[in-house]
Amino acid sequence: MLRLYGDAKSGNCFKAQLLLKQLDLEYEWVDVNILKNESRTAEFLRRNPVGQIPVLEVASGVFLPESNAILHYLAEGSPLVPEDRLQHAQVLQWMFFEQYLHEPSIASARFIVRYLGRPPEQELRLQQKIADGYEALALMEQHLETRHFFVAERYSIADIALYAYTHVAHEGGFDLGHYGAVRAWLARVQAQPGYVGMAAQ
Amino acid sequence: MLRLYGDAKSGNCFKAQLLLKQLDLEYEWVDVNILKNESRTAEFLRRNPVGQIPVLEVASGVFLPESNAILHYLAEGSPLVPEDRLQHAQVLQWMFFEQYLHEPSIASARFIVRYLGRPPEQELRLQQKIADGYEALALMEQHLETRHFFVAERYSIADIALYAYTHVAHEGGFDLGHYGAVRAWLARVQAQPGYVGMAAQ
Repeated sequence: MLRLYGDAKSGNCFKAQLLLKQLDLEYEWVDVNILKNESRTAEFLRRNPVGQIPVLEVASGVFLPESNAILHYLAEGSPLVPEDRLQHAQVLQWMFFEQYLHEPSIASARFIVRYLGRPPEQELRLQQKIADGYEALALMEQHLETRHFFVAERYSIADIALYAYTHVAHEGGFDLGHYGAVRAWLARVQAQPGYVGMAAQ
Repeated sequence: MLRLYGDAKSGNCFKAQLLLKQLDLEYEWVDVNILKNESRTAEFLRRNPVGQIPVLEVASGVFLPESNAILHYLAEGSPLVPEDRLQHAQVLQWMFFEQYLHEPSIASARFIVRYLGRPPEQELRLQQKIADGYEALALMEQHLETRHFFVAERYSIADIALYAYTHVAHEGGFDLGHYGAVRAWLARVQAQPGYVGMAAQ
């Protein structure tokens, strides 16, 4: 059986949880508390030397890290990964956007505010993350103003990747009030078959 | 014909240039000087609202940004993208690693040192980039100690993605002296058929 090592606080882990549910795949959840540095133990580093969650154990002793690579592994061959070569690349384009511009700002701001308690020594860093996060949100808003989903007008793993931290962006201090297209898209994702919310903390 | 918008100073653009050569694909190069903010003009933002290079024009008026999505688009169906589902995901795993940990540190350090002239006000940021970059290099070294290439013992777009900024890391002040497995891998990439170096600046 698939085994997912993760922390329910993490949007990166939620991506995999949501997809596994939507693909109706059974899996075992192994809790790794990042606030207790459990992703940095010698045992965990044998699963992922980078020391990050999530990690998917796809077969006994075979570990796949990187949330968006996990999404691709699980969804390849399903309608959530387009077969068309350009659309496939466009799905990856938005997933790289997510890891380069979106997650480092929006997820980091949420972590500083919600899980570190917004310590004063992180305030300057937080303000930069918030500024960068609004830039990412503005790019999403512009794209979604004329679209229902990120690629090819259908729900894909690009939407899952971007949804994960966008739908909890307010926990990092972001106000989505001026991002109507983003909010309408969040609602469309929530209306997908098999949708489950992020576990309450 | 394919058209690649890029700056020859950029390792992200070099990834596409190297792959296009190795796949023996013809393309037109359109120079976009990032030091003159040419990727931020209104005209360029219509091609890529994110304001980044490279951008591949795959057909007239159809623009694909994100270097690693471009690699995937060009190489899908070739031996440079494994057909096996897990190996395909592992290639993406290392490409996400590249964009999340490697490029933001190693490429940024190079940019600060080589193209911004190492301004004193950036020194603190540079030192952080260098520390993060050595972490990324150590992870690559550990992985390559028992492997010839990043995934499945064969050259893939994961190698191209990671090669681009690693082979010019010294321009950002990195010393690869203690990274013997990385240096041996760089030489293996350089020995691939159709290899071309990065354009001299």
